[in-house]
Amino acid sequence: MPVTEFGLIQRYFSKQPTKSSVNRLGIGDDCALMSAPKGYELAITTDTMVEGVHFLAGTNAKQLGHKLLAVNLSDLAAMGAEPVSVTLALTLPEVNESWLEAFSKGFLGLAGQYSLDLIGGDTTSGHLTLTVQAIGLVPENKAMLRSSAKVGDLVFVTGCLGQGGLGLKIAQGYHCNKPDKALKHFHQPVPRVKEGLAIRDIAGACIDLSDGIASDLKHILDNSSVGATLDWHKMPMSEEVKAYVQHTNDWSMPLSAGDDYELCFTVSPDKVDSIGIDCTQIGVIEKQPGLRLQRSGVTKELAVTGFEHFSL
Amino acid sequence: MPVTEFGLIQRYFSKQPTKSSVNRLGIGDDCALMSAPKGYELAITTDTMVEGVHFLAGTNAKQLGHKLLAVNLSDLAAMGAEPVSVTLALTLPEVNESWLEAFSKGFLGLAGQYSLDLIGGDTTSGHLTLTVQAIGLVPENKAMLRSSAKVGDLVFVTGCLGQGGLGLKIAQGYHCNKPDKALKHFHQPVPRVKEGLAIRDIAGACIDLSDGIASDLKHILDNSSVGATLDWHKMPMSEEVKAYVQHTNDWSMPLSAGDDYELCFTVSPDKVDSIGIDCTQIGVIEKQPGLRLQRSGVTKELAVTGFEHFSL
Repeated sequence: MPVTEFGLIQRYFSKQPTKSSVNRLGIGDDCALMSAPKGYELAITTDTMVEGVHFLAGTNAKQLGHKLLAVNLSDLAAMGAEPVSVTLALTLPEVNESWLEAFSKGFLGLAGQYSLDLIGGDTTSGHLTLTVQAIGLVPENKAMLRSSAKVGDLVFVTGCLGQGGLGLKIAQGYHCNKPDKALKHFHQPVPRVKEGLAIRDIAGACIDLSDGIASDLKHILDNSSVGATLDWHKMPMSEEVKAYVQHTNDWSMPLSAGDDYELCFTVSPDKVDSIGIDCTQIGVIEKQPGLRLQRSGVTKELAVTGFEHFSL
Repeated sequence: MPVTEFGLIQRYFSKQPTKSSVNRLGIGDDCALMSAPKGYELAITTDTMVEGVHFLAGTNAKQLGHKLLAVNLSDLAAMGAEPVSVTLALTLPEVNESWLEAFSKGFLGLAGQYSLDLIGGDTTSGHLTLTVQAIGLVPENKAMLRSSAKVGDLVFVTGCLGQGGLGLKIAQGYHCNKPDKALKHFHQPVPRVKEGLAIRDIAGACIDLSDGIASDLKHILDNSSVGATLDWHKMPMSEEVKAYVQHTNDWSMPLSAGDDYELCFTVSPDKVDSIGIDCTQIGVIEKQPGLRLQRSGVTKELAVTGFEHFSL
């Protein structure tokens, strides 16, 4: 019997019973069915990854499955939403069962960590293209919006900046004495779901760092009609990223490189003591529009579009 | 200024304010936000269309935008769900603004007919691949499931069978004296949303016909652990499809061809008088597993997988 599309989905992605009580019906009908508990809203996000654009041909399938889901969970984290459901649209050039098995392990392994259910999907033939839609729950009017930053708020970031960027550089051939942490961050980022939930009642605006803080924070500033100044010397960086910056003089990488999947959020000064997660204050929200960087006593505008034009 | 991914989405897909009160936040943040009214469940479906697989290169972009949304709304219709939100993941080989404008017209034009909101999306670079996720509302426990067919139920179908298949044949060069209706059905199918809502309280199982009734009805039979016999002579067909069958002797086409997007549903005999939509009774649900076809007094099993093996 040929492996039909339906068979593919069934074999690799339907092994697990639904875990979240909000998911009444998963894979196997025209639609999935879910309910939202009283007092909750649904947060919905979608992201596509294309071979040759977002990842190289031959990328480890298990890591790819993990990362595809992680980048979507990172968007839920930025709203302060708890992941509950996900759908997966797989476009595959061929039926490669070992690839599917590894991919599903990475994908479902991460899903399992959040009691997240795969409730639907579609399998089609074509250039390797992966689209996920993730759904999370957030109490009504509690979602952290990009439009909620206020003048005087302090700007925080979880984790370190530049880990994803350094991982990519290493994957492309850059020599690093301790490459493991950065590579793991690049290939298998940990979405900051726990942190997003923890700051939901404290933070104002929040965004996840997928394109680099200079680009991502700008969305908060534009949506909130405010500006910000960041302090270069406060930027949290791993020893490896510091060494990279020192060796290459490419000091803008930690601000411009993607794939960090940390959260950047704003908090009003009176609430700073309530922050219950590890994070670093890196700047302040100001009335003057634009994004500025303070470094060695000099403050300059960060270019908005295209980091290649960025200079200090 | 270069047309950024964000700009693309903004320019063509954010023109319209959200119409449904369940959609609190649309495109422009990490996630969209929606709420489900008390007493309702969400029905969620996803479908991908790939150039060269599901449609030919050079397909009219407006028709493509319409069809992409229609096939997803057809899945919602099959559950008896009312469409409210949709996300769109566009993978495009290039920034072709006239293509985008036409595509968005087809997509948003159909969305507008249902007061449906485009609440999110992703634009990526690659081989033309289009994924939609559609979300609908259905009262709790009222969704029509594939597993709800019962022995003795009658099998109904909306509209005609084989219109989509004939449209494809015409597009591939088959000469038909009156090609317009079949071609329109193939390129711009009308999802049976209204009909799905109308039969929600009357029908048992329901499915939409995307792969041909022989294949699609089998999902109902398998999920309900029943069988069925269809009557060839009751199958509703347009004059053009009847002429096609007569000329080519390809009589199985109306049962095996995809792209009909009609609803096939079961109704218990005591509820038949309550059906308030145009539809045709074509068969009956039976205890004996399998799908059978009665034709000219002879009843034979319909092959399950691969219609090429089908013979009578």
